[in-house]
Amino acid sequence: MEGVLLFIGNELISGKVINTNVILACREFNAYGLKIREVLTLPDKLEVLIFHLRRLAEEVDFVVASGGLGPTDDDITNLAVAQAFNVKLVKNKEFLSAIRECKEYEHSQEIAEKMALLPEGAKPLADKDSITAGYYLSVKAKDFFFLPGVPSQYEELLQKKVIPFLLQKVARKKSFVKIFMFFDLNETDLNLFFENLPSEITSQLKIGYYPVFPEVKLILQSYEKEVLKEVENLIKEKLGVNLISTKGERLPEVIGEILREKRAKLSTAESCTGGKLASLITSIPGSSDYFERGFVTYSPESKVELLGVKKEIIEEYGVVSFETALEMAKGARERSKADFSLSLTGFAGPTGGDTENPVGTVYIGLASKNHLLSFKFIFQGSRTEIQTMASYTALDILRRYILYDKNFSGYRFAVGTKEKTL
Amino acid sequence: MEGVLLFIGNELISGKVINTNVILACREFNAYGLKIREVLTLPDKLEVLIFHLRRLAEEVDFVVASGGLGPTDDDITNLAVAQAFNVKLVKNKEFLSAIRECKEYEHSQEIAEKMALLPEGAKPLADKDSITAGYYLSVKAKDFFFLPGVPSQYEELLQKKVIPFLLQKVARKKSFVKIFMFFDLNETDLNLFFENLPSEITSQLKIGYYPVFPEVKLILQSYEKEVLKEVENLIKEKLGVNLISTKGERLPEVIGEILREKRAKLSTAESCTGGKLASLITSIPGSSDYFERGFVTYSPESKVELLGVKKEIIEEYGVVSFETALEMAKGARERSKADFSLSLTGFAGPTGGDTENPVGTVYIGLASKNHLLSFKFIFQGSRTEIQTMASYTALDILRRYILYDKNFSGYRFAVGTKEKTL
Repeated sequence: MEGVLLFIGNELISGKVINTNVILACREFNAYGLKIREVLTLPDKLEVLIFHLRRLAEEVDFVVASGGLGPTDDDITNLAVAQAFNVKLVKNKEFLSAIRECKEYEHSQEIAEKMALLPEGAKPLADKDSITAGYYLSVKAKDFFFLPGVPSQYEELLQKKVIPFLLQKVARKKSFVKIFMFFDLNETDLNLFFENLPSEITSQLKIGYYPVFPEVKLILQSYEKEVLKEVENLIKEKLGVNLISTKGERLPEVIGEILREKRAKLSTAESCTGGKLASLITSIPGSSDYFERGFVTYSPESKVELLGVKKEIIEEYGVVSFETALEMAKGARERSKADFSLSLTGFAGPTGGDTENPVGTVYIGLASKNHLLSFKFIFQGSRTEIQTMASYTALDILRRYILYDKNFSGYRFAVGTKEKTL
Repeated sequence: MEGVLLFIGNELISGKVINTNVILACREFNAYGLKIREVLTLPDKLEVLIFHLRRLAEEVDFVVASGGLGPTDDDITNLAVAQAFNVKLVKNKEFLSAIRECKEYEHSQEIAEKMALLPEGAKPLADKDSITAGYYLSVKAKDFFFLPGVPSQYEELLQKKVIPFLLQKVARKKSFVKIFMFFDLNETDLNLFFENLPSEITSQLKIGYYPVFPEVKLILQSYEKEVLKEVENLIKEKLGVNLISTKGERLPEVIGEILREKRAKLSTAESCTGGKLASLITSIPGSSDYFERGFVTYSPESKVELLGVKKEIIEEYGVVSFETALEMAKGARERSKADFSLSLTGFAGPTGGDTENPVGTVYIGLASKNHLLSFKFIFQGSRTEIQTMASYTALDILRRYILYDKNFSGYRFAVGTKEKTL
């Protein structure tokens, strides 16, 4: 079974809008093992749409189209479908009554009602009283889906209607799905893990994964719930320390949940990441419950004045060193109301650094009530990538400290560790 | 004249890679007024490629394809072109000798030489001794370009070869280009500006613009250099305060240049943006020349302890107020080695706020040697959008303070101002 993703809209071709739906759809179809033959983006142009709709009805098994279902003049998808497949446009009663009851369209009823004019045979996809557009249409025994282009609606219908429908068609049986998020794990490590599983298990699994920088997302499918449970246990056993979530959350959310659960507070002291770590933490709603304050100590003086890093430490070891990171974390904890503090100092590039500490070197410090730890990493990539990797790694160090009893082994970019017990 | 953008590669359909070339190409073609009829992404599959190449040679005037030109087994674009158009694959001598002299391919000569096997009639696009793949081919009097998928190479050939070629074909005359960046300007404002220009000018202009959130980029083309100069002067006169760059830089870079020129230093005090402002400033290489330190004062206590905001101020006016923003900026300047300080306090949402200060409300403070200013804004959008808009607006307030003699008029989301002269 092979399909085509079709995106309709002048704005998608103008470059004025980034089509995030295409990234989402490609990822999800690939992860669920549904084969895509083309990804096609077309303008709101009747003859172009008709040509391709007819062509696709001959060539592929399913088409997931989106866009052009709204009430304005440039929304011509329904008209194109009707003309391409020689069917009438008829008012869909259920959808029409939902639109009539909707306050949003109170003053534009006439225009809004155009949305309910669907190709004959179309089956609306949204729930009964919803005013979300989108329908299924069978053409020459091929499956056509027409979804709204609004990303939230597109995603919801894709996940809840389109993918389950297609999976069932491939499978003829209900399958179960489980999502895992990993940090600091190569895709090749995941490869190896699955290669080493007994074939009785892998033969019952569909495996898909892709990077969500700097994390990796894994989607497993099986017809057997027990197989998924067994693999989840094996993942926890073998990859446990790299597994950050079994629900799809990313590290800033995961850290938030851990800290909220412990009723603990966090503060940060950043040099080379310049506020990136604090910004990631505070991108999560409600982060004021656990984030207390952050110090962006960019100049050497600010490290001395705000964090109490001793001048002699900086003179003897340098700003980018195990010792300065330790002192920064210690100072940030003492000078805040936090239970834990994370610090970062390094060379984010593109210039700077030396033989011992080249561009990409970042020292990460962690201070708790009983411990003072400092780690050296050498990351790769652009300035932004190094700042991002360093910030995520700091969050992960705290996660491992709390949940994995200081198991810091195996970090891919780690070079060394220093520890003080207080 | 109408064309198609064609992207070739399994990785582009897998969702594992975000195709940034498609965004770039759509923007540039649209901005230069070159019409795109389809954007098509295809897997590395011979029969699919052949089908579409033949179809496109009938249907459109030009095709800009990319991907699949490398030396590995899955690179089959050249083979597909040869079979689609019934031409032989022949070794291109110049390209071959460039590959033979390249150190990178020293140990994989045989494999690398495959890259020089081009469809008969292909004209390499890169300079003589370059090993960048990519060529032009005329098929049935239609223009076909085949570019490498590597973004830096794709962009370079697109900008330097493909677009000039197509523009010349449309124009038959050399045209000049000028790029402008704006902040806090609606696209409709730009529309209005151009509508009010005399038609003698606009008739000689090609105008393209698109948002690069939260800024707007404008590209002007003309065959007459003087017309561009005249419009630039009019833009400076009418839209001057919103014009942030005539070279394409974004606000964090622009602020960096302004501060470096003045040999001035900046510090920040952030609440609701949680480090986003500091992170934007320090995303620019060399920002340590002008960024001194940042305070992420998330808890009320941290505002008192780190910035010296008076408890009574917070109790009387609240954390989210003109007065607290003023005190934060003042405190950040006094407690750093900075000439200027910017502060932010507000409700980034999705919850919080009240009738007077709903979600989206952000007070921005600015402290200099002589002035203490505080502004109220009500921004719209998601938590991340509000944090981003607020941080960019803070940078823009500093830009206007320094370059436009405190001209703060016209901010779209501004609600009020408070000022103290010190």
